[in-house]
Amino acid sequence: MLENSQGSKTNLSELGEFGLIEHLTKNFKITPENTLKGIGDDAAVLDFHGEKTVVTTDLLVEGVHFDLAYMPLKHLGYKAVMVNLSDIYAMNATPKQITVSFAVSNRFPLEALEELYAGIELAAKLYEVDVVGGDTSSSTSGLVISITALGSAPEADIVYRNGAQPGDLLVVTGDLGAAYMGLQVLEREKEVFKVNPQSQPDLEPYSYLVERQLKPEARKDIPPLFRSLELKPTSMIDISDGLSSEIIHLCKSSKTGANLYEEKIPLDPAVISVCEEFEIDSTTITLSGGEDYELLFTIAQGDFDKIKANPNFTVIGHMTEENEGMHLITRANQKIPLIARGWNAMEKED
Amino acid sequence: MLENSQGSKTNLSELGEFGLIEHLTKNFKITPENTLKGIGDDAAVLDFHGEKTVVTTDLLVEGVHFDLAYMPLKHLGYKAVMVNLSDIYAMNATPKQITVSFAVSNRFPLEALEELYAGIELAAKLYEVDVVGGDTSSSTSGLVISITALGSAPEADIVYRNGAQPGDLLVVTGDLGAAYMGLQVLEREKEVFKVNPQSQPDLEPYSYLVERQLKPEARKDIPPLFRSLELKPTSMIDISDGLSSEIIHLCKSSKTGANLYEEKIPLDPAVISVCEEFEIDSTTITLSGGEDYELLFTIAQGDFDKIKANPNFTVIGHMTEENEGMHLITRANQKIPLIARGWNAMEKED
Repeated sequence: MLENSQGSKTNLSELGEFGLIEHLTKNFKITPENTLKGIGDDAAVLDFHGEKTVVTTDLLVEGVHFDLAYMPLKHLGYKAVMVNLSDIYAMNATPKQITVSFAVSNRFPLEALEELYAGIELAAKLYEVDVVGGDTSSSTSGLVISITALGSAPEADIVYRNGAQPGDLLVVTGDLGAAYMGLQVLEREKEVFKVNPQSQPDLEPYSYLVERQLKPEARKDIPPLFRSLELKPTSMIDISDGLSSEIIHLCKSSKTGANLYEEKIPLDPAVISVCEEFEIDSTTITLSGGEDYELLFTIAQGDFDKIKANPNFTVIGHMTEENEGMHLITRANQKIPLIARGWNAMEKED
Repeated sequence: MLENSQGSKTNLSELGEFGLIEHLTKNFKITPENTLKGIGDDAAVLDFHGEKTVVTTDLLVEGVHFDLAYMPLKHLGYKAVMVNLSDIYAMNATPKQITVSFAVSNRFPLEALEELYAGIELAAKLYEVDVVGGDTSSSTSGLVISITALGSAPEADIVYRNGAQPGDLLVVTGDLGAAYMGLQVLEREKEVFKVNPQSQPDLEPYSYLVERQLKPEARKDIPPLFRSLELKPTSMIDISDGLSSEIIHLCKSSKTGANLYEEKIPLDPAVISVCEEFEIDSTTITLSGGEDYELLFTIAQGDFDKIKANPNFTVIGHMTEENEGMHLITRANQKIPLIARGWNAMEKED
């Protein structure tokens, strides 16, 4: 796929002294108000104007987090930025800068890295963050991307995971499960392609799902919306690993229980339809699927009027006393304990 | 080596739900004054008390930057932190926090990662930085470590690469070339070990060199020393890639030339002696060797009295007009153009 999609190829070793990063970042602009010095010194120099700084980092590994057989490099660059910005929004903060490091093997020509950077540049532009540093290295195999995002917020605005109280409403933005089902569709097409390389997949019926997988958007709109609604959530987290484990994170941090109502989980019609086609239970995939990059938060019951009828938000449950545990209340009114999805030998702390 | 040095082995997949990072970082303390929230939320929350923030990142790849045949994991963790802190000191700033991400293959048992983290923890403690985040992932091959360091400084104190003027003195801390020669010694012992696994290397005569390679120290002492001397360099960079390319960076950023005097380059006696043993020219290895993590800076001639006779500093040359170019003046009084060392297909911008 990599070879097919590239017209010309420049070997990285042909670049000479002028520097790969210099070449890849030469069009990057910085915002002088927030970034006093970007790329080109030992470190970048940033100004947060007296606000608190928030920082998060994510590592994406080829063969673990992405498959270049169906993930175009431009999309990968874009998504790698989204994954980090989503963590900043989940603090109710505004991302300001990112650093981008990667290790690549020789099979990647310069044009492939230009594609990757085009996606990073697009994300940085649309989300108004400066690319202020990074590091590049050769790799003995595959592509590894490490991004760190910095943001800022007034201390009073910052929302942690640990502030939920029993009785608070559990709310989610957008809809869930689409990114995971987009991945299932892409995996199926990859298998078809292996058997018959001439086949032309018709992904049109799955366009929403595939886009949620390949080009997710972080919820940039939500922190300003909270401010305009004069609403501060009591706790918040972004949904990267599936609803179930995120609810467990909020409950454990806040020392509460939770009841999640199956019938309230917001699903796009395309998710319902593709779950029928794949004969997968839609609740299972929202609980365990991941990569939705929506925000999950809790609010005091008294704040319900502020979000009522707002199409961005769906109340999906409420927090309970810690000793009541964490449960899914099914459509049949059964109470099933929430469990984190299978542990993948690796875990992320932020 | 990895297998030999580990007593017990816990497969990472045996860890269950409690979380690898939680396990590895459970003893890490944060400094509440600077770090409002460390590990355990979507992002860390930091306070720089109105000072400017500096940020830098480095990626270390097994087989490219380190060889676990002679690099113990604890030393690797320590060194990975030093590489980043050195960039912060080169801005004349104080490091405050780091994030640590890594990807590992299954061949690393938990105990190996505990060793790695023991080195990170020791570095964080000695250099007074908080470990505030990170990400872990499995890897299809080898170990990749990505560290981002954040620091702070009053805006007026920050020293960039671009402030040198013609006539400024070119000054270096410490001595050069030892880390590179330490690597040569270790590479030689590795070859001996391959031929005769029973051989017991006597590294005692090379202890300074090997320590500079395996356990380098960043120059934490220099920014406060500058403050006590009431000295602000006009430009500064850390020496990670060899003296020659660092001088070229300062000159290109500052739009100056430079004359470097071969006879002034500070060498430890152990470097001189091992260069004779290996029949390598000591000037060549200081110019191109790298990994010294000393600081290279320029000062106005009028500030010379502030550093005169200070054993931390050696004046090795001076800056010239840009059109005079960048030269090494040899002991035989020959003028040789400075060239950057061979380009390794990868380059770092900070």
